[in-house]
Amino acid sequence: MSGYPNYGYGDGYGGAPPSQPPYRTHPPPPQQPYGAPSAPYEAPYAAQPGYKPPKDKPHPHQPSASAGGYPPSSAYGNPFASLVPSAFPPGTDPTIIACFQAADQDGSGLIDDKELQRALSGYNQSFSLRTVHLMMYLFTNTNTRKIGPKEFTQVFYSLQSWRNIFERFDRDRSGKIDANELREALLSLGFAVSPVVVDLLVAKFDKTGGGRQKGVEYDNFIECCLTVKGLTEKFKEKDKAYTGSATFTYEAFMLTVLPFLIA
Amino acid sequence: MSGYPNYGYGDGYGGAPPSQPPYRTHPPPPQQPYGAPSAPYEAPYAAQPGYKPPKDKPHPHQPSASAGGYPPSSAYGNPFASLVPSAFPPGTDPTIIACFQAADQDGSGLIDDKELQRALSGYNQSFSLRTVHLMMYLFTNTNTRKIGPKEFTQVFYSLQSWRNIFERFDRDRSGKIDANELREALLSLGFAVSPVVVDLLVAKFDKTGGGRQKGVEYDNFIECCLTVKGLTEKFKEKDKAYTGSATFTYEAFMLTVLPFLIA
Repeated sequence: MSGYPNYGYGDGYGGAPPSQPPYRTHPPPPQQPYGAPSAPYEAPYAAQPGYKPPKDKPHPHQPSASAGGYPPSSAYGNPFASLVPSAFPPGTDPTIIACFQAADQDGSGLIDDKELQRALSGYNQSFSLRTVHLMMYLFTNTNTRKIGPKEFTQVFYSLQSWRNIFERFDRDRSGKIDANELREALLSLGFAVSPVVVDLLVAKFDKTGGGRQKGVEYDNFIECCLTVKGLTEKFKEKDKAYTGSATFTYEAFMLTVLPFLIA
Repeated sequence: MSGYPNYGYGDGYGGAPPSQPPYRTHPPPPQQPYGAPSAPYEAPYAAQPGYKPPKDKPHPHQPSASAGGYPPSSAYGNPFASLVPSAFPPGTDPTIIACFQAADQDGSGLIDDKELQRALSGYNQSFSLRTVHLMMYLFTNTNTRKIGPKEFTQVFYSLQSWRNIFERFDRDRSGKIDANELREALLSLGFAVSPVVVDLLVAKFDKTGGGRQKGVEYDNFIECCLTVKGLTEKFKEKDKAYTGSATFTYEAFMLTVLPFLIA
């Protein structure tokens, strides 16, 4: 084997690295031992006011009958299920509400991809439509490309959290972070991925044209976070016992992976 | 469940549809019963002269020790493994050899992504760099973005085969195929995917701007074929007993899926 022989990553996605990362002055990432049911995945969200972790609501295309088992593909359901109507969580920042209402011009309570893209681009940042589609998928769990108040609030708080983390690790203010920094950033978000996976992420999300100094810029960092968060959550849905392994039917595998492609 | 209650897809990716598709005047897709070891995946390639199905060669990042089992993530190895040097298979069309040699300007025996893109764009077709990256990954099984004579030949023959199939199903010569036609096209390539998966593929690969008449154009059809072929082969690597289910460690899952994102 190559790459990370001394690390515990092979034991499961929740495994803690062998030593404390150097940035541990901030709120520490959860360091649960392998197999602990309160895995690090929800860490950044649980800290947000009003946020309910996704596992609290039933997934619209994953009926509860399938929970804990390996459902036949027929149970996997409709990846285009309608978005459940929602409201702003109590205590939502009024700026967020105003921002959503400005985007929701017809007052339908839902905004589409281009409206979300515009709503998010007023904060010294811009996102590709691809990134926006990935956000919409991950925060609604459907491919219908609509988003409501609750999901918008989650997107907003997540972006704030991710921007803070990006800026913390972009120590030289170059506007990009390298592989080691990306690994630390993901760890501080609660995702313990191996160095091999980090290298693959950098290879995929480095759009700076390569050169000597590989790195991931802010908008691609967000897409990277969305991808890691999304894939990890999908994996976890199939690994409810936290064994570190998950079994998919072919149908479930395709329906799990395809939404992440060309979002 | 929704979508395809009467179909056998839930039984596994090799399952045959319940009835003969209407286009069965052409070489039929294999109709092996569920669980038969000679699955339909290699069908179009096995028909090509000089082509060896991928399972005949060891995967550079999947040591044989892992065959048939669920290797620890540490066995998954290096996704950037060097490409094994290769030669043109006996009987390769001299045009293909000339085409490769024209692209390989430094005579290194390997061409990079932009050289491959140029080499393939002389045939009344053009491909995005993303599609080219996906081709390079799938036909070399590494992320190093180099391709040799053997892989180039496979790419060339596959594109010929896929172009023929696209043209066969684009009956009205509109330059795009709809969901039903895509499903038939994939079936004739040996991939039995459910209507729900086809709908998701069309949603992802329809770049025509939507409108009333959804459809997939040629270059996106190729990317769609590459994606389905690649994901199916990766799934099959983990389901050597053809049970219809595959188990992944978190590490293997990430290393399997990430190369398909943002190729």
